[in-house]
This record gives sequence, structure tokens and C-alpha cells, in this order.
Amino acid sequence: MRCKRCRSDLVAIKLPRHHTALCAGCFDHYVVDQVEKAIRQYRMFRRDEPVLVAVSGGKDSLGLWDLLHRMGYQTTGVHVQQGIDGYSGNSEAKSRAFAEANRLPLVVYDLNKEYGGGVTAIAETSHRNACSACGTVKRYAFNRIGRELGFQVVATGHNLDDEAARLLGNLLRWQIDYLAKQSPALPASHAKLIRKVKPLFRLTEREVAAYAVLRKIDYVIDECPMSHDAKSLQFKAVLNQLEHESPGTKQFFYLEFLRRQPLRGADPSAEGVLLNECARCGEPTTGELCGHCRLVAPLERMRQIQPGQRIDGGSDDAIGSVEPVAPVSTDWDA
Amino acid sequence: MRCKRCRSDLVAIKLPRHHTALCAGCFDHYVVDQVEKAIRQYRMFRRDEPVLVAVSGGKDSLGLWDLLHRMGYQTTGVHVQQGIDGYSGNSEAKSRAFAEANRLPLVVYDLNKEYGGGVTAIAETSHRNACSACGTVKRYAFNRIGRELGFQVVATGHNLDDEAARLLGNLLRWQIDYLAKQSPALPASHAKLIRKVKPLFRLTEREVAAYAVLRKIDYVIDECPMSHDAKSLQFKAVLNQLEHESPGTKQFFYLEFLRRQPLRGADPSAEGVLLNECARCGEPTTGELCGHCRLVAPLERMRQIQPGQRIDGGSDDAIGSVEPVAPVSTDWDA
Repeated sequence: MRCKRCRSDLVAIKLPRHHTALCAGCFDHYVVDQVEKAIRQYRMFRRDEPVLVAVSGGKDSLGLWDLLHRMGYQTTGVHVQQGIDGYSGNSEAKSRAFAEANRLPLVVYDLNKEYGGGVTAIAETSHRNACSACGTVKRYAFNRIGRELGFQVVATGHNLDDEAARLLGNLLRWQIDYLAKQSPALPASHAKLIRKVKPLFRLTEREVAAYAVLRKIDYVIDECPMSHDAKSLQFKAVLNQLEHESPGTKQFFYLEFLRRQPLRGADPSAEGVLLNECARCGEPTTGELCGHCRLVAPLERMRQIQPGQRIDGGSDDAIGSVEPVAPVSTDWDA
Repeated sequence: MRCKRCRSDLVAIKLPRHHTALCAGCFDHYVVDQVEKAIRQYRMFRRDEPVLVAVSGGKDSLGLWDLLHRMGYQTTGVHVQQGIDGYSGNSEAKSRAFAEANRLPLVVYDLNKEYGGGVTAIAETSHRNACSACGTVKRYAFNRIGRELGFQVVATGHNLDDEAARLLGNLLRWQIDYLAKQSPALPASHAKLIRKVKPLFRLTEREVAAYAVLRKIDYVIDECPMSHDAKSLQFKAVLNQLEHESPGTKQFFYLEFLRRQPLRGADPSAEGVLLNECARCGEPTTGELCGHCRLVAPLERMRQIQPGQRIDGGSDDAIGSVEPVAPVSTDWDA
């Protein structure tokens, strides 16, 4: 078997969904090309616009950071230290090591310092599922830190498998509100919200892992120990099964959904949603208290922490130069 | 464990999706109740309306025929003899045996007699997939025989697993036109079309099989040998996997789809579809030739058969009294 692009006989990876096989160099070219295509197609950010990259220490987020940095974007990482024993220390260490090796700035948002406990304590005191609690806190942190540092966009490492699994889950439960909005690029629907983009949405998990390995990125291999029964893993497993039987299934399922947007407009509640500011933290919310505050308030009360007060009284724990970035016009049509 | 309904300790079946377990008698009551609910909810047919039942000889169709007969409906069976070696003979025999034992009329539509070959020959000469060819011929036969005998409705044995698998397949391929129409009750959209209904759509495959076993129905157990790699079986398998992890998944997925109809109106081609009559057989079609005629024409040409001519020159092979039925008003709102 030969590389489909350069005819070299050193094939590094087969891509059944594209009926092709590529050598390491051409695979790298393919990955960069897919990310460029994603950014261009959804106008995720401009060449000159600083990008905040949400970094967990896994292959997807470090792969994304590596890609955007190589492609010449001005990037800053943000890592949420979740305080999960035997896991989060390693995640933070790998994120810091990548930042240092590439001389890139990284902000660390430490749940223990913010709320007096990690994601497990937050989930327990609020009687919430750990994965859902973790997602709420991360979304809050990425948006607040991004806005406070002057970023207008945060990029996450969600890949095609993540997005297809999310789509399947939303369809199985007919969560029309989520289906109507699901997109690799969410606009800023409020002055206090920054844009959220997913530049890896055209690449499968396997492709991103291969990229990270070929680039010798030192990432956390283990799945988060809290996610062992996460629904998303079940959805990924069945999609992989169908993909194995019919290569291209996953890609068609998600990309055709994006192309056709069949459920846009099917959400009667989508019109006229007014965002207020949370009575406790001031972040945008549809209710009186935002989801983040409802989530962390029980733990903060227990620990007798004032909202927004940090336990060490210090600022965000950052490495490198984390200066507020200059605002950049995002008037795409200009 | 006790029967949830009568507290008997002779539990015959557990129903995880309903968090319940039932004895044989109460399970029978449950099955009849679900079918009654289905018929009522979709106004499938009236008490006094003759119903044509499509019968393959499997658990679903014979279970359905048994149920409708027991519930007091005036039923006639129709069986398509597909001519698949080592399979179709048994299917026809079990269908005939059921009809005879219950003194019910049965019409047999024999592909060999109609077209000079079975489903394999039809699929081969038309370069079509056997499952798709079989579906086209059956839909044609059920509709034509039903209409010619004066029926206004044909019932098929599709169960919840069939319908959920079809929904999943349509979603994975975003077949919006099929998604917009998928329903347990299709109206007659042309004077030559009769209504198509699926009274078992609220019951899982496992429940219908249990019903057939408890009723001692002698049915064909083997899957059709042509369907070994049918996509629908793959979709059923992954849905069963998700159902096993979260009982109720399948039911919620399909019934909530029916309740919300999120894709009705998403098919831009649905408006203004005009049905013509096929230039060859006169059945309704959107084109010049209907799908059935495009499918069987190559085989008929090869066998030098005139369209509509039967090889034995005789009428439909029927047992019992297969008289045209008296028309019944279907003005539901009267």
C-alpha cells in the first residue's frame, strides 16, 4: 500500500472513511488542511485574532493547541484543575509542560482554590452528576477568564466523534433545544459571552490521536476516572460499531446534519430568550441565578467562602505572559 | 418477584422499560392493551372495518393476525411467496397453517407465478439489493390486492424495534423525506392507495416474540437468509445495546419522535407532490413508470411475460373465503 498523495510506501495511517492511506508527512498536511477548512467554513477566528484554547492535557486539546500554534495563531491556554485524585495532577502537569516547552502562556483555574473543593465535592454537595458539574464549571471558567483577559473566542478540542456522539444523544432524547443550536461555532449571544468554536470537528478521535502521537505530544492517555459510565462513551461506541460496518457513517451523520440544519427552527422556545445577569456572579443567565452559581453555592456555603473570593486570595495561577489581549474587530463582513 | 398487576408469583416476563414484571395472563392483557391503544391513538381502523393483514409467517405478522382476530376484527391475510430457496416454502406453510387453524381467509401472491422468478431473480435482473426489491414488491402487492378486494387498510407487523431502527437509519443518513413521513399510520394519499398501519408499534420485538410463544403460535424462527447483512439488523443491535444500558431508550426515542414530529415540515419536496398513474401497470407513482414496474420489467422481459399476465394464467392463489369486502366509511370525524 502506498500513500495516496505522494506515493511513498511508508504509509502511517489508513483513513477508511476517505478510502485512502497516507504517509506521516501527508497525514500532517491532511490534518492541518481539515482544521483550516473548519476555521474558514465557520469563520471561527481571523489570522490576527488572539485565541484562548481550553486545555485538559488530553490528545484533543493539546493537539488543537499545537495545531493552532503551528498555524501561526496567537494562542493562550486555559486549564481547569478539577481536583480529581490521581488524575487531575497529571492533567495539569502535562498542560504546563506543553505550555513551557512551546513558550506559550497558560492560565490555571483551580477549583479547590475557587470553591474549596474539586469537581467531586461540587457534584456531591449539589447532588449533580460529576460530568455535568464539570461541564458547567468549565464553560463558566472559559468564558469568564476569556472575557476578563480580552479574548473574544475560546476554542475547544471537540472532535468529530465527540460531536457525532452528542448529536446521537440529543436525537435519542429529542432535545430539540440542543439540536437546534448544536454547531462547531457558537456566536456570542450576549455582551458578556465570548464565541465558542471547535476547530477539530472535521477530524475523528483516531485521527487526532494519530496526530498527537506523530507530533510526539506528551498527553494524558487515561479517560477521566469519573466518566466510566458516561453516556457519551456509549454513544461513541455504537457509532464506532456502525462506522466499522460502513466507513463514513459518522462523518455523513454529523456533517450532513450541519449542512442541512434540519432542526433549526424546530425549537419553539428559541425565539425571544432574554439573558439577564446572574444575581450572584453577574454572568449571563436565563434565570435569576446562573447554572454555575446554583451548582457551586452549596459547597461555598459549606466552606464559608464568599462568591468570587479565592481561598488563597491570589489571582489566577498563570505561567508565561498572560496579559489582557488587545481587542480585535470581528466584523467578518468588513 | 411477583406480577405487578395481579401479585401472582408466576412471573412470565420482565419488562425493564416499564420497571415491571408480569405473569402470562397479565402480559396477555398488556399486549392487547398496547395494540388497542395504538389503533385508537392513530385511528387505524374501526371496529366494523375489514382489515387486510400482511403475513410473512414470522412472529410479528402472525402475532398481529392472532391479536386482531381475537380482538374481534374481520381480518384477511395476504402472503407474498418470495421464492427464496429453503425459506419461503416454510414461510408460506406456516402462514397457511395459521389461516386454516383459525378458519381465516388468506391470499397468496406468488412471485414465481407473477413474474417468472422469485425475489432473488428480480433483484439480480434489476441490479437491486434483495431487501429493497422485496420491500417494493410487497408494498405493491399489499396495496393492489387490498384495493382490488375492497379493503381500505392493510396492517403490517412492524414492532417498536423495527420502527426505532428505521428512525435511526433515516437519521444517520438524514433522509428528511422519509423522516417527515415516518408514522405508524400512513393515509391513503391517492384514490388507488389504501391506508397502511402498524398496530404493533408500541411493543418491542422481544414482547411480540413472548406473545407468540405464550399463544403457542407456530411461526418461522429464522431470519430471512437474504437479510444477514441488512443495515436494519445493525441498527437494531446498537439500539438494543443502548436499551440494555438504559432501559426505555428505544421507546422514548421512537414515541417522543412521534409525539413531537420534529421533522414534519423539514422536507421542502413534500409540498405539491403529484401522483400520476404508472404507464405500465396503472398504480400511483411520481414518475412515468412506478418503482415496482422498473424493478420487475427486466425479469418479465427476460421471461417474455406481459405485465400483469400470470404464468399459470390463474387468479390469486387463495384459501378460505376471499370475497371482496363491502366498503366501509372511514369518515373518522363523523
